[in-house]
Amino acid sequence: MKALVLLSGGLDSTTCLGMAVGRHGPEQVGAVSFAYGQKHARELDLGEQIAAYYNIERQVIALPHEVFAGGSSTLVEGGPANPTGSYADLPPGVSPTYVPYRNGNLLSMAAAVAQKAQSRNPFESVVELWFGAHAEDAEGWAYPDCTPEFIGSMANAIYVGTYHAVRLVTPLEWLTKAQVVRQGLALDVPYYLTMSCYNGTVPACGKCPTCISRIAAFKDNGVDDPIEYASFTNAQIVR
Amino acid sequence: MKALVLLSGGLDSTTCLGMAVGRHGPEQVGAVSFAYGQKHARELDLGEQIAAYYNIERQVIALPHEVFAGGSSTLVEGGPANPTGSYADLPPGVSPTYVPYRNGNLLSMAAAVAQKAQSRNPFESVVELWFGAHAEDAEGWAYPDCTPEFIGSMANAIYVGTYHAVRLVTPLEWLTKAQVVRQGLALDVPYYLTMSCYNGTVPACGKCPTCISRIAAFKDNGVDDPIEYASFTNAQIVR
Repeated sequence: MKALVLLSGGLDSTTCLGMAVGRHGPEQVGAVSFAYGQKHARELDLGEQIAAYYNIERQVIALPHEVFAGGSSTLVEGGPANPTGSYADLPPGVSPTYVPYRNGNLLSMAAAVAQKAQSRNPFESVVELWFGAHAEDAEGWAYPDCTPEFIGSMANAIYVGTYHAVRLVTPLEWLTKAQVVRQGLALDVPYYLTMSCYNGTVPACGKCPTCISRIAAFKDNGVDDPIEYASFTNAQIVR
Repeated sequence: MKALVLLSGGLDSTTCLGMAVGRHGPEQVGAVSFAYGQKHARELDLGEQIAAYYNIERQVIALPHEVFAGGSSTLVEGGPANPTGSYADLPPGVSPTYVPYRNGNLLSMAAAVAQKAQSRNPFESVVELWFGAHAEDAEGWAYPDCTPEFIGSMANAIYVGTYHAVRLVTPLEWLTKAQVVRQGLALDVPYYLTMSCYNGTVPACGKCPTCISRIAAFKDNGVDDPIEYASFTNAQIVR
């Protein structure tokens, strides 16, 4: 295996997967998804369909839900309701949708998986660990575990801590959401299979920050988002 | 909570706990232990006794065993037999007792726990995450996920990725095993409750690298290791 992709089933990670498959071919790419108690666990089923579309192997790992539950995160089962409105409308400070050090955990677990894949063949080169954080995730420190500062440190910790077997690769790190979609459209990424909605509903709620961000990203590219929405609450993004 | 200590039940982490309790008092200290499929799972029971000794709260978190199993690590259930002889006798390269990116995972999960403890009281200061890696763990890259290079990167990733809520603290980072024991003896750390043996036997095997290292560390301090050993195979350390 040359690349292991963190695949949530969302727009960014699926674009990442499309880029990895384009680079290395499906037989050299694997994906890993995580169950951590997210409300939008439907993304795990979509991850399976996306992996089938790309003809790659995908595994699902369950993390101990109790670690991420019981705090203030709106993203996990038992947490408060997800906010409505765009990311820009959220108050400064800890994002309500932040899950305690989630990405540190997902990356660490994926690094162990990638390391094992590499050690099966010591003559194989380093395994790339692809992670689809993009620039707007980091804006205003909305998600500190998506910032370049976090990514740089984590990349080094993983590289050192795996005997240089695993390298973190973040091709979307400096791209806006619209630029991510532009990359994906050029690669025919199957966006109709992806979901972004924090509430995990079908159709997508259209009101939560990530729905709004996603709709705007497609609009900026002059194309229709292929998934369905229940409503559009933000006048700026009604087409 | 001011400090969360990674507590394996071994000599180093128990010394770390003794230092944390000495610094902050037991009511401000918590501990976390991990079940990851280790052969020496008896350490989890000892962790409970050590936590009771210090009158602190300790939680056990189960990580997905399948991630760490099935590779070449001798430390986990289903893996090859643990080596005998001292660390210095091991061949160069990946240590047979290395578990794929284990410490990256333990620290990341503990960071999430610490972050949640902090967020319950936003007026509380940063939570310290105490990790007992010591200098000999890093020697010759035996454990790359114990090196100062790893620790520095991970400390920054955790600090950034938790909105500056969690700081990694590694008081043993530059100490030899003998110096760790010296610290612990001065603090009356209950070493009789700890175990180090990779095989997890009672009495300890006395033959595996960590048994040999532990016995030598006590010997260097001119005191008896209070736990029992089945045998001593290394002539240098027979008392």
